[in-house]
Amino acid sequence: MPLREPLQYLSSNGRSFQPSAIRALSHLLNDPNVISFAGGAPSPNTFPVELVSRCVQRVLSERPHIALQYGPTLGLPRLRQFVASLCGEREIACAADQVLLTTGSQQALDLVASVLVDPEDVVLVELPSYVGGLASFIGRRATLAGVEQDDDGIVVEDLRRVCMKLREERRRPKLLYTIPNFQNPSGRLMSQARRAGVMEAASEFDFLIVEDDPYGELVYVDGVDTTPIKNLDIDERIIYLGSFSKILSPGLRCGWIVAQRDLLRKFEIAKEAADLCSGMLDQSIVDEICNSDELPSQIASVRSYYRDRRAVLLESLDEHFSGAARWTAATGGLFTFVTLLREVDTAVMIPDAVAAGVAYVPGAPFFVDGSGAQTMRLTFAKEPDDRMREGVARLARLFLSREHG
Amino acid sequence: MPLREPLQYLSSNGRSFQPSAIRALSHLLNDPNVISFAGGAPSPNTFPVELVSRCVQRVLSERPHIALQYGPTLGLPRLRQFVASLCGEREIACAADQVLLTTGSQQALDLVASVLVDPEDVVLVELPSYVGGLASFIGRRATLAGVEQDDDGIVVEDLRRVCMKLREERRRPKLLYTIPNFQNPSGRLMSQARRAGVMEAASEFDFLIVEDDPYGELVYVDGVDTTPIKNLDIDERIIYLGSFSKILSPGLRCGWIVAQRDLLRKFEIAKEAADLCSGMLDQSIVDEICNSDELPSQIASVRSYYRDRRAVLLESLDEHFSGAARWTAATGGLFTFVTLLREVDTAVMIPDAVAAGVAYVPGAPFFVDGSGAQTMRLTFAKEPDDRMREGVARLARLFLSREHG
Repeated sequence: MPLREPLQYLSSNGRSFQPSAIRALSHLLNDPNVISFAGGAPSPNTFPVELVSRCVQRVLSERPHIALQYGPTLGLPRLRQFVASLCGEREIACAADQVLLTTGSQQALDLVASVLVDPEDVVLVELPSYVGGLASFIGRRATLAGVEQDDDGIVVEDLRRVCMKLREERRRPKLLYTIPNFQNPSGRLMSQARRAGVMEAASEFDFLIVEDDPYGELVYVDGVDTTPIKNLDIDERIIYLGSFSKILSPGLRCGWIVAQRDLLRKFEIAKEAADLCSGMLDQSIVDEICNSDELPSQIASVRSYYRDRRAVLLESLDEHFSGAARWTAATGGLFTFVTLLREVDTAVMIPDAVAAGVAYVPGAPFFVDGSGAQTMRLTFAKEPDDRMREGVARLARLFLSREHG
Repeated sequence: MPLREPLQYLSSNGRSFQPSAIRALSHLLNDPNVISFAGGAPSPNTFPVELVSRCVQRVLSERPHIALQYGPTLGLPRLRQFVASLCGEREIACAADQVLLTTGSQQALDLVASVLVDPEDVVLVELPSYVGGLASFIGRRATLAGVEQDDDGIVVEDLRRVCMKLREERRRPKLLYTIPNFQNPSGRLMSQARRAGVMEAASEFDFLIVEDDPYGELVYVDGVDTTPIKNLDIDERIIYLGSFSKILSPGLRCGWIVAQRDLLRKFEIAKEAADLCSGMLDQSIVDEICNSDELPSQIASVRSYYRDRRAVLLESLDEHFSGAARWTAATGGLFTFVTLLREVDTAVMIPDAVAAGVAYVPGAPFFVDGSGAQTMRLTFAKEPDDRMREGVARLARLFLSREHG
């Protein structure tokens, strides 16, 4: 019997998976005529190529039988230990046996979704939120409920309102997915007061928190407080995710989960089925870098690189969009998020933008409530300064000129 | 509210995940007093360390912005092209756009389970079968139905009997999971006649086939025919999985899926949520090796290495176990599978074995029907020749001496 309808064989989850609207735009990134504020990748200019090169040689000459072999599902022991101490520096009490290394923090999100989320379970997500996280929850057919943010992060009153409404329906959220530090896509930093309010709500309404923190080290202004919510987590309801992707390299897929031990054991078993172990050469390189004392200077140089790029983008926005748009401060991370004040659908405008030689990520796919048409995400990690300035000028011509009114 | 019962938050899948009984034994592998036939990893003596070292330097000097960056979910284009041509050499008609690169072939199995298998779906598996594959299907709460094998592979009559029985219950299997070439754990090679019979049954009873082929290149005797079932797949119902783990290195997590294009697109979307992309440094290294013309000599040297080890193990078994056990020919791959003729439970004997300074993998966990107590898997990839000889002598004392009767 020929396979006439291959898709009839799909599982319910297989039918529910959605491709990323953002990654679908990635072909735009490679046209040199298009100045791109799209994309979410770090700048290759920040990759420590020479350091990686030195470390990989050391690893391959000293311990190739480890670096090229299968490894423990939990990850390389010394690197787990290092991650625990890194978390300690972030004021998170954490032992090495609470750390699971993952194939990037995307895998961490997927393991969390797999182990915790059943179809119809309510997952609270920020408005807007990271589409990769949403994809993992959607792939388990979760019901996503949006929670409002303002420039201080999650609006606690709205979080409580959503939880109360669920309680009236005799439901409770399974978990909240949040990115408190320089969120993708909004670039926002959640205030410490809001973090405390979120923690309190989690305890009161008995949900878990998945705290995703890939950008916490990328700080560009003095005085911001990036202490994770996990610091307040006295009853271990926070699953804390981190990554080396933005401070070293995303090509070395190396992220982590810190969690309560019984839950961590479940994530480990799920990971065993997912890929047995993460790449051991990648882990060995990251481990070698972390134990070389060169990580602090690498992080300092990454910060310095982006600090300058950010300044150029924000100055250009000031110059062209004052009074016509609002945008987030981006005191860290890779993005600012622009809300145009006039009525316009940034998704519809993409072909015009590309024709005008500029690209951005429309904001709507980040909002699970269907809002966000007037928003867009801009990264300052992609283009050199002069092209950023020209790109913002093109955006202004596109969105502010009369013929597009 | 303190988190008193963390496991109450688990999803149904989260509750169903089972740790590998095999990987739980892995601590036995590191005691030098224990001669180990346990474990399923390739020998580090086969890793092309110097070649990897050269290739990684080339990659890092020529294209670090690719090797250290996020990459396409489908994988590095030139490596997908190479895999397509490798499949062509295996007599599989396959274009590059039918190839998805995965984080090892374990991820391939997990994507297949995720996209195709719903709770209660019937998955046909060989008796015995690879526990990592079983884990991915169990993790989706599939109903596993065992199909008998003999030394020519799947017994087609039994496969048809199982399908007929399901048909009487108005059910049909969603897919068959098979490892036709030097199966893990049995070491068996399925005959071409059986492959044709399996293909025919798949078409008649309308199920998909997941053909897992990590060992196909590891051939140690002349005249064996490893042509994949996929060669017979005129209606594209076979999902073909391969890996570089056994011919290069499993630490570079690099496997692949070849499938019908609509299904491949679904696997791609599932992978996007699973880990965005596989490690780009790993892929770049493998790609560089594959395009260096050094792969054939590497494969030849791996074959030669294992051919000699296999001979030692089989000779030792001949010497000590003739008339007391049967074992598979292991004309390729990494394992032979021993069935003891007297009644004994190899799982129960593990502590005695370790006390006697020898380790193996008990066969029962590989059988979904609860059989296999008298079986064990032995690898010839782990120990040097003299230790293998001594190890088999220890096994003989353990299983054949009077006081253990």
